[in-house]
Amino acid sequence: MNEFDLIRHCFTREARHSVLGVGDDAAILRPTPGCDLHVSTDMLVEGRHFFTDVDPHALGHKTLAVNLSDMAAMGAVPRWAFLSLALPAAEAGWAQRFAEGLFALAYEHGVDLAGGDTTRGPLTLSVTIMGEAPQGLALRRDAALVGDDVWVSGELGLGALALAERLGGEVAVEAGLLAAARQRLDYPQPRVALGRALLGVAHAAIDVSDGLMADLGHVLTASGVGAEVWLDSLPSHAGMEADRPRYLACLAAGGDDYELCFTAPQAARAAVLAAGEATGCRVTRVGRVTAASGGRLLDASGNVVSLARTGYDHFTQG
Amino acid sequence: MNEFDLIRHCFTREARHSVLGVGDDAAILRPTPGCDLHVSTDMLVEGRHFFTDVDPHALGHKTLAVNLSDMAAMGAVPRWAFLSLALPAAEAGWAQRFAEGLFALAYEHGVDLAGGDTTRGPLTLSVTIMGEAPQGLALRRDAALVGDDVWVSGELGLGALALAERLGGEVAVEAGLLAAARQRLDYPQPRVALGRALLGVAHAAIDVSDGLMADLGHVLTASGVGAEVWLDSLPSHAGMEADRPRYLACLAAGGDDYELCFTAPQAARAAVLAAGEATGCRVTRVGRVTAASGGRLLDASGNVVSLARTGYDHFTQG
Repeated sequence: MNEFDLIRHCFTREARHSVLGVGDDAAILRPTPGCDLHVSTDMLVEGRHFFTDVDPHALGHKTLAVNLSDMAAMGAVPRWAFLSLALPAAEAGWAQRFAEGLFALAYEHGVDLAGGDTTRGPLTLSVTIMGEAPQGLALRRDAALVGDDVWVSGELGLGALALAERLGGEVAVEAGLLAAARQRLDYPQPRVALGRALLGVAHAAIDVSDGLMADLGHVLTASGVGAEVWLDSLPSHAGMEADRPRYLACLAAGGDDYELCFTAPQAARAAVLAAGEATGCRVTRVGRVTAASGGRLLDASGNVVSLARTGYDHFTQG
Repeated sequence: MNEFDLIRHCFTREARHSVLGVGDDAAILRPTPGCDLHVSTDMLVEGRHFFTDVDPHALGHKTLAVNLSDMAAMGAVPRWAFLSLALPAAEAGWAQRFAEGLFALAYEHGVDLAGGDTTRGPLTLSVTIMGEAPQGLALRRDAALVGDDVWVSGELGLGALALAERLGGEVAVEAGLLAAARQRLDYPQPRVALGRALLGVAHAAIDVSDGLMADLGHVLTASGVGAEVWLDSLPSHAGMEADRPRYLACLAAGGDDYELCFTAPQAARAAVLAAGEATGCRVTRVGRVTAASGGRLLDASGNVVSLARTGYDHFTQG
């Protein structure tokens, strides 16, 4: 199967809202009048961003999901994706499974794969995602204000728990929790609907890919503010609640969850809860923005907690 | 130098027409009302698309140039580029030279590098280019009509001549011609201004990256037509004219020139010449579109000429 066959067979689906899709020197798209265009690009390299033996269906899902998560963190509606793929050999079966995983999520979110490129080379994926939001309404990192509440969507810590298992072997936790964690790591669900519902309600937002405190830190730096985060308030999976102290590092510093962390004025608390309700997504208030710079994690007594990532090791045995 | 330093030091320049450039979950761009958005993406892998010992400055130029050439072939004005870069090591010197080559061309064309991604990995470059053209006016591949003239910009054959030297050793040609050929291969000049001037004048267009007959073939297939091309009319460098028969394969089938091949109605001949004049670019009429499918290369007697790519071997010695 050569490059042209691979593109035709695996990666060509009907474009639903593109003037011209795959097959010319460029795709032609028609942005919505009055909207800004939001564009993000990610490159994933085998052995660095994913394991060599990864299920290609899960990889197809996740490759698009992490890009959709960037759109969610801007409050933008994702519309068009472009995929560049270097493959060691034209492995049609692998590409087919990858495409199925990617298109399943693309369809769910109404995203066109409008173009791309395939070549022979070390397994590398590069996706550019494009979305739209009304002009001037984006959830930028530099928009947090002193006095804002800090909020988190969904539940934290699952991605980190599954990653600890992948990296370190068996994890001594209850089966239901482990299954939920694996599902989160392999098939993260970008919070696109929530991000959209927060436009005009929230101030700043980011998605939690590197860990809550690290990602919130980017918002604080960009906004020139600080924050306190209440450890006891961090939302976790029910399976973690019984033994919560064990999972504190996962909750506060674990990556790969692709939840949203955002700030909103105190006057918008009811509106934030309504946005969560409307989009079927739990939202939890976990801290507040302060004038003193830096992010501080506080325990129930108000003492600063220092978390090292080495906390992950606690989950593995043997 | 870590990833963040590399991005800040080498790849962050002032964004001149982006609402928000590098540094958030996504770049924010504001498309021009009434314009369609044109998007193209290319992935380049070391050892396949460029030589390991390539001058990084030339590679930076060419990586952007081939993408600008796609915009030229649509008649779009390039505006924003996104670069994803996998580097084996954070080689600041290499990245700096690469960035200089890329930004020199970006500035010349008023293009913002609005975002991207860098990671450790086998040397791989992926660029997404975005441009604009008034709605409905693009030079699409499927728009050639029977009776159209076939035109070519600039001069053909130089890229192929230099590639033959790179691949096969010394080339027995005059020094001035060889210098021009090397310059063409390393620093191709995308015909952006000409493409823009041809909007509303030409019908279909494509850029010559794989060879004139091959690339014209894509236009003919997409448009459901054929064409005859007159071998004697193909425009060549003055250094080739003295020994023209030797370079016929280069002219008709040589790649890497990044000239435009386009079709236009006979009634538009004066307008095409005026577009060339206005943009300082030679334009040459080299054939016509026919109802019979396929592209046919004809000699002065009207006989079909068959060209094999093995013609390249003629230039190399030893």
